[in-house]
Amino acid sequence: MADKKDILRETDDEARSLARKLVRQARYAAIAVLDPETGDPLASRVLAGTDVDGAPVILISALAPHTAALLADPRASVLFGEIGKGDPLAHARITLKSKAVRVERDSQMGHHIRQRFIARHPKARLYVDFPDFAFFRLNPLSASLNGGFGRAFALTADDLLINSPVLEELAAIEDSAVAHMNVDHSEATDTIVTALTKSTKTGWKVIGIDAAGIDVAHGDEILRVDFPYTINEVDELRPMLSRLLESA
Amino acid sequence: MADKKDILRETDDEARSLARKLVRQARYAAIAVLDPETGDPLASRVLAGTDVDGAPVILISALAPHTAALLADPRASVLFGEIGKGDPLAHARITLKSKAVRVERDSQMGHHIRQRFIARHPKARLYVDFPDFAFFRLNPLSASLNGGFGRAFALTADDLLINSPVLEELAAIEDSAVAHMNVDHSEATDTIVTALTKSTKTGWKVIGIDAAGIDVAHGDEILRVDFPYTINEVDELRPMLSRLLESA
Repeated sequence: MADKKDILRETDDEARSLARKLVRQARYAAIAVLDPETGDPLASRVLAGTDVDGAPVILISALAPHTAALLADPRASVLFGEIGKGDPLAHARITLKSKAVRVERDSQMGHHIRQRFIARHPKARLYVDFPDFAFFRLNPLSASLNGGFGRAFALTADDLLINSPVLEELAAIEDSAVAHMNVDHSEATDTIVTALTKSTKTGWKVIGIDAAGIDVAHGDEILRVDFPYTINEVDELRPMLSRLLESA
Repeated sequence: MADKKDILRETDDEARSLARKLVRQARYAAIAVLDPETGDPLASRVLAGTDVDGAPVILISALAPHTAALLADPRASVLFGEIGKGDPLAHARITLKSKAVRVERDSQMGHHIRQRFIARHPKARLYVDFPDFAFFRLNPLSASLNGGFGRAFALTADDLLINSPVLEELAAIEDSAVAHMNVDHSEATDTIVTALTKSTKTGWKVIGIDAAGIDVAHGDEILRVDFPYTINEVDELRPMLSRLLESA
């Protein structure tokens, strides 16, 4: 048997980009937590979104066993990556080792997360404010990326998260920037998405803007369009969007 | 907050049937195990099949962390149920609490499991006999079925497993019975599938026959067709298949 380290490839920008896309393009994930009574592992499905730094966020009900589990022990392993046609294991997936933190509903972070989550999951508006529902942020500690047979990578939290001094500042204007794109520049969004992704569809809606890129949705499909670099000042956002459009 | 028991519905035949279908129609699952070094939960994706009694079976590599985890602690939680269009949480899924047992390659059980697994996953033939791959049978202890919002059920192992005195005897002739159906009765298979499921496709292949029904595949899609009752003698198989065809 080969040593396990032998099967890991060196983590490069392509692996980092794939890892981030798997998390940021997800609508749901499988989460593994610990049963507080028995210590047994417990797998379940959760709705997923992201915070402004790319950390996963989940919206869960106090009636579900995973919620009691996370409140008792914050260790959570989360599997992202949808299955397409053909061999299920040929499709890329990523497992994040994380520490779950309950998000205070009335905090600034809570407002951003709620806003971003509803943009990604419009139907969640129906129950997001129910008292037994809560957001948990899953702070990544490390990750294991499997890009298909023989393509395994170990990633750090830094490989996954967006590092910029303007994350919060951008979050404060995100809602209006998203609305502006969707109301005044919907053709530009389609131009950017069709040029920079494999999609040929039109009718894409922006659902999130952060320091490293934009998230767009079309029906059930979510795509991530990364900026060529992470912006460090809020004033860089508009020129960056124009630059994307010009390069498209 | 409502008591958790309040949200559970009484387990009826419809819930049992749905639960069994979610497991038997699956090509893959998300498994939660315990990291042997840290006790952390660990989520990953695995190829899935079933044994002749409907218990899940997985084929995993010794190079994958979940294999070392299961060898150290057999507790495994397994999530089945694919996502279709629309809200991810509107789609039925089931979590099985299970105890994993490594399957001896050269045992009678090992032969049946290998045969059934390859019929379900033809590409697995390429690596199923590699020395670092092994089958694990996930013996169900209980299960939690979520049929969509507000439709939660608790199930026992008996609710999930097929109980018949002829499981092993049928397993011994399964391979030839499957070949016979696919070679001599492929039109009959299509007639049965289109009459008893929602599928309108033709070209279905039988991939498994057990005491309670047949598994059929068409490309990436797997469907389960249950018999109206579980057979208790091998001689009942042929009349049961004729009966399905006549009722179609």
